[in-house]
Order: sequence, then C-alpha cells, then structure tokens
Amino acid sequence: MSITRPRGFRAVGLAAGIKAAPKKDLALVLNDGPRDVAAAVFTANRVQAAPVQWSRRAVADGRARAVVLNSGGANACTGPEGFQDTHRTAEHLADLLDIAAQDVLVCSTGLIGERLPMEPLLAGVTSAVDGLDAGEEADASASRAIMTTDSVPKTAEVTLPSGVVVGGIAKGAGMLAPQLATMLVVLTTDADVDAATAEEALRGATRTTFDRVDSDACMSTNDTVILLASGASGVTLGVQELTEAVRTVSADLARQLVADAEGASHDVHVVVRSATAEDAAEAVAREIARSNLVKAAIFGNDPNWGRIVAAAGCVPEAVAPFAVEDLSVTVNGVEVCRGGGAHRDRSEVDMTPRETLIEVDLGAGSASADIWTNDLTHDYVEENSAYSS
Amino acid sequence: MSITRPRGFRAVGLAAGIKAAPKKDLALVLNDGPRDVAAAVFTANRVQAAPVQWSRRAVADGRARAVVLNSGGANACTGPEGFQDTHRTAEHLADLLDIAAQDVLVCSTGLIGERLPMEPLLAGVTSAVDGLDAGEEADASASRAIMTTDSVPKTAEVTLPSGVVVGGIAKGAGMLAPQLATMLVVLTTDADVDAATAEEALRGATRTTFDRVDSDACMSTNDTVILLASGASGVTLGVQELTEAVRTVSADLARQLVADAEGASHDVHVVVRSATAEDAAEAVAREIARSNLVKAAIFGNDPNWGRIVAAAGCVPEAVAPFAVEDLSVTVNGVEVCRGGGAHRDRSEVDMTPRETLIEVDLGAGSASADIWTNDLTHDYVEENSAYSS
Repeated sequence: MSITRPRGFRAVGLAAGIKAAPKKDLALVLNDGPRDVAAAVFTANRVQAAPVQWSRRAVADGRARAVVLNSGGANACTGPEGFQDTHRTAEHLADLLDIAAQDVLVCSTGLIGERLPMEPLLAGVTSAVDGLDAGEEADASASRAIMTTDSVPKTAEVTLPSGVVVGGIAKGAGMLAPQLATMLVVLTTDADVDAATAEEALRGATRTTFDRVDSDACMSTNDTVILLASGASGVTLGVQELTEAVRTVSADLARQLVADAEGASHDVHVVVRSATAEDAAEAVAREIARSNLVKAAIFGNDPNWGRIVAAAGCVPEAVAPFAVEDLSVTVNGVEVCRGGGAHRDRSEVDMTPRETLIEVDLGAGSASADIWTNDLTHDYVEENSAYSS
Repeated sequence: MSITRPRGFRAVGLAAGIKAAPKKDLALVLNDGPRDVAAAVFTANRVQAAPVQWSRRAVADGRARAVVLNSGGANACTGPEGFQDTHRTAEHLADLLDIAAQDVLVCSTGLIGERLPMEPLLAGVTSAVDGLDAGEEADASASRAIMTTDSVPKTAEVTLPSGVVVGGIAKGAGMLAPQLATMLVVLTTDADVDAATAEEALRGATRTTFDRVDSDACMSTNDTVILLASGASGVTLGVQELTEAVRTVSADLARQLVADAEGASHDVHVVVRSATAEDAAEAVAREIARSNLVKAAIFGNDPNWGRIVAAAGCVPEAVAPFAVEDLSVTVNGVEVCRGGGAHRDRSEVDMTPRETLIEVDLGAGSASADIWTNDLTHDYVEENSAYSS
C-alpha cells in the first residue's frame, strides 16, 4: 500500500481513454482532511507544461484537497488552449467535489506539444470520483494509471513510532538516463502539520533524493512532486521528523526510478567524498554521472577510471577545489586509482552486479554527496529513438 | 596535401611499435624556418596529460621548432614518471635536431593511466628524423599516425591570394558525441607573423570551430591545437587575415571530425538565432546538442521538437533571456514549432539525409551561434563500451 495508508486519503486509477491503448491513464488522489495542507516542488525547466503552471499557482497558499493526474499527454507547449484544458479539468473536479478549483492540483505526462482529448478526460474524472476508495486496490490502480514507459508501478510507505504514516507513488523511467522524461510523485501523510512545515520538509527531502537522481539541471517540462497532509492522525510532527519520514519514502521511490530506467543494465551509484563542501561533492558526482563515456564503459563492464577522473576534471576549480594528485577512485570496492594514477588492476573489479558503486575521494575536505544514474546501453538508445515523448 | 604545403615544413609518420597492432603511431612535424613562431590552445580539463603540461610551458615563449605526436597512449594520470617520459621524448628529439628541448612540443592520445613504452618510442623518434620530408606522402603518413578510432585521416589546406598557405591535420572521432575523446590538431603556415598575431589568430579561429564541436566544457585530458608559422613565404599577414585563413582550415577539419564521429548516423548542425548575445545563442545550441533524448530522437529519424524546446528550457534565464512563447524550431527546413507550440506537422520533415539541420529562433535579439554534434546510436554505445580509452 502507499498513498491511502495514511488516514484521510482516498485514491483511484482508471482507463479514461486518453492513451490510444486501453490502459489506465487517469488517477485521482483526495485528501478528506481534517486538514488540507499541501506543498509541491516543480521542474526547474523554463518550459513549463500547463498543469505545472496551474498547480504552481494553486498550491501557493499551502492548501489543496485533490490531485488529478493523467498519462497519455504532457499538455506542454500547448499554449493558452492547453492551460484552459488544465483549468477545465480542475473546475470539473472541483464542481463534483464541491470545492474550489484552486484546491485541485493537476499533473500530466506524455508527449509534448499535443492537446489532451478533453471529452474522455473529463468523463474519466467523473468516473474517478465515483471510484475513490482507500486500500490496496485504490493505491495499485492509481500508481498504475500514471505509468508511461515504466515497467512497474512504484509505491512506498513508512510508519513512524508515533503512528504517523507517509506514503507515496511515483512514475518515471527515463529522466534518469538522462534528461527530460517526466517524474511525477504524490506523497501523502496523516501528520498534523502546517503548510510551512510541509513545504520545508518536502524541499529538504527532495534535495537529497529526487534531485540526486541524475540531473535537476535538466528536468522535464512536467516534473512535479506533491506532498499532501491530512492531519488525520492527530499527531503533530516537527520539521525535522517530517523531513526524515518524507526523505525515507522519497529515497525509496527514487531508488525504484533508477532501477526501472529505460533500457539500463546497471544502476550506478556515484559517491564523492572528502570535498570542501556538499555542493562541490555533488557537482563532481553529477559530472561523472552525466558522462556518456563513463556510462557506456559501465555498460561494457569496464571500470574505466581514466574516464571517471577526466569527467571529474571537467568541473571548474571554483566549483570544486581539489588537486588531481589527491584523487582516488574505487569501483565496486577496488581502488583502481590512487594519487591521480593507476593503483590496483582494473581486472580485479567485478562489474557483473546490477549495481555499480563508484567512490571518488577528492582529498580536499570532509563533505560528501551522491548521485544515482544508469549506464548507457543499446536498449536506452532503442527506447529513446523509437518512442516519441 | 596539408601541413607541408606551406613552405618551411617537413613531416613524417611511422609505426614505432607503441600500438599493439602494427600501425602508424608516431608523427613528427618540423618547422625549418626562417621563423619558429608557435601558438597553442589546450584542453580546459583540470586533469592534464603530461604532454599537455609540458607543451603548455614549452610554447609559453611563442616559439617552437618541432611537434612530436604519438597515438597508442595518452600519457595522462601517469604521475611524475609520465611527465619525465614526455621530457625525455622532447630532449631526445632536441638532441637529434640540435635544438633546445623547450622548442619541442609533444602530443599524445590513447588510453589514460598507462605509461608509454619509451624504448620503441625513442627509437621511433630517431627514425622519424631520418624520414622527414615534404610532400603528399609525408602529410599522409603524419595524418595517419595520429589516428586512434578515426576511420579516415583528416587534412585541410587553404592558399590565400597573397600566396600564403595554411595547412592542417587532425585526429578525433569521439569528442563529438560527446566528451573526453582526444582531439589533436597541428596547423602550419608560411605566413610571416609574430607570436602575438599567431596566438590571437589561433584563439579567434578555434573559438568558432573546434570549440563549437559539442563540448569545450568537457574536453579530454589531452586536447591540443597547435599553430606553427615558418615565415617562409616572406608575406606578412595581419591578425584578421591570419584568423580568417586559420578559421577556414579549422572549420574544414572540425567538420571532418563530426563526419567521422564514432558510430554516428547523422551529423547534427544546431543553429540558434535571434538571441540577445552570441554567448546566449551558444549556450542554447550546446544544451540542445548535448541532450541524449534529442540525439536519440534524431537517430530514430524523429524531428521531436518537444525535446528540443525542453532542452532549450534547461538553459537558465540569466544565461539566455527569451520567452518560451516566442520560440520557433525548424528541422530540415520545416517549421515544426512556432510560438512555443506545434506548427507544421512533423511528418513533413525528411530526416533521411546524413546532415540534420536544427534551427531555433529565440525571438529575443539578433545574435546567433551554432554547434555541431552527432546523433546517439547503437554503434556509439558499442564503440564506447567495447573500446577502452
């Protein structure tokens, strides 16, 4: 279970006919309260899909009652008409629930540049309201309805000793490897918190989870992570407690996104240590994680530390101070590079596990950061050249 | 012909036994003068191979008589011993030519992290001095000796109305698509210029040619472009004239690098117009050229303007001011996106030619810039996962 495990939530997913194939393509998540606290983080892309434009404004007051999500179309680059479609969707749901349209958040994912089929979509919203429920089936149908190229639905939950529950669903299978495929996440909790606490916890949690899955410098036009808090547990949480709980669920979902990346044969965990600051460590980890030559080498089961060191060297000194002579690189536990040069033989590295761990020590300080990515494979090329998104 | 077409130069390439396979792997270019003017630009990578460290210092006085280049090993991340190997190479050649070691520049390309086999290398340098010659065969052997994964040697030359000649050879077949594979270029001219003129002309020419082939933000550990001027024509050129001539040869060679990129099926020319400044246009063009999703779409013959627009949207507003509603995208002459939304149907675009032209109009100013790159193909993945470099 996931988003309806916390008290105060119902959800549903169904096939509205937005996708060409008869698959689930519409999800609805409802917060029955007593509180209607909401926070959200959105893509940093300047090209923002209509639902992102809408939801950003709607959540600005820290409140939302419902989230409606569709796959089968991103509603991005669709102009004022596309925004109107999102608006109509929110109004239609608001009318059915007898709430205000600005308490409805909207998420879309799919092809950019095409209008959504509004008739089936609105009819689907009507059916969704009738189908709202709590429990395993509701969570399963909602998590399935937001899938695009995902091979499996992603759900997670955590229960705190205080009884507070945080649950979540996510979709995304391409952003990781890398760039632009949409990530949509809905997190729910029955903690009794105010909007400022929810906002701070969500930002703190995403910063070291979803943001660390490859490239926040190049998110899609539609990326959205939403946190809804019902207060139904009656238990108040501090920012730190809520942040930790949301981070646990977010880290779990982020790891699932990596594992389901389109066409990947390795999940790659890049850990950079002994940096002068966390930002510096993150910049180096990100540069390594984004190098196509590093990613292709890992696909070839080659622990090519030269490409890793060369990628690290592409980070400007002002961003990450370190001396090349102090660099060490350990791949799957074998220190193949020490002092900026060859150390143990690369043939000692076992590259067969699905997970590849690259540890880089900068020898410059005590900060660290990590990035998750995938290798670059034939299947990645195949899926991203054959699938129009 | 190429580098020995300008008067005052001799060259040679031979198989010294540095590569495992019996292929040419050592080249020598000699400037017989009367002048020994030299300029060079090097990789921006902080991890600099021993030959880059050596040549950077050696060319600082604006003078050089000879360039010795080897394939079969990058001599990068090889520590003080690797630097000593480069130093010995320069000294050995200097002794043979009776010149100073600091008048010898050194370039290497191949696998990172392994020492060069010095015995065959030094013996090869001795043989190279004996084999120096001018003419078609000399140029051909030198251009072949610096090849690694290149499928063809790259040469170019231009003769000005004044009789001045600029020639060049280049190697590189992977930097383009993208990151880290070495580019080595030697340019020669018989123009009578001073060191400051040569330096300014080389920097001006590379800025809009070699630097515009994908990613100068992530060059290899060994990238080097050298210009030697013999003065043998007796014709003095101004900075502008020399820049133009060097740019012509550099643009020709850069285009050849793109055409020979490892595993590519399309050469992609990204042109960004109507930007507020050239830097802004370049940043947008580079972001599009570096997007794996754009590159994979082109491999799939899909003029996916949504991915192009989304990549443009990843450039921060401070770097490139433009409004999404003003964006237009034209692929191979068909304006598939206008005003930030769909325009002509993507099915009208003919993606079958080897060259794909992506034109983006930002509607924000009058500056423009272009970047050359390649598509992302199965063969790219194959070559870069199977070939350790």
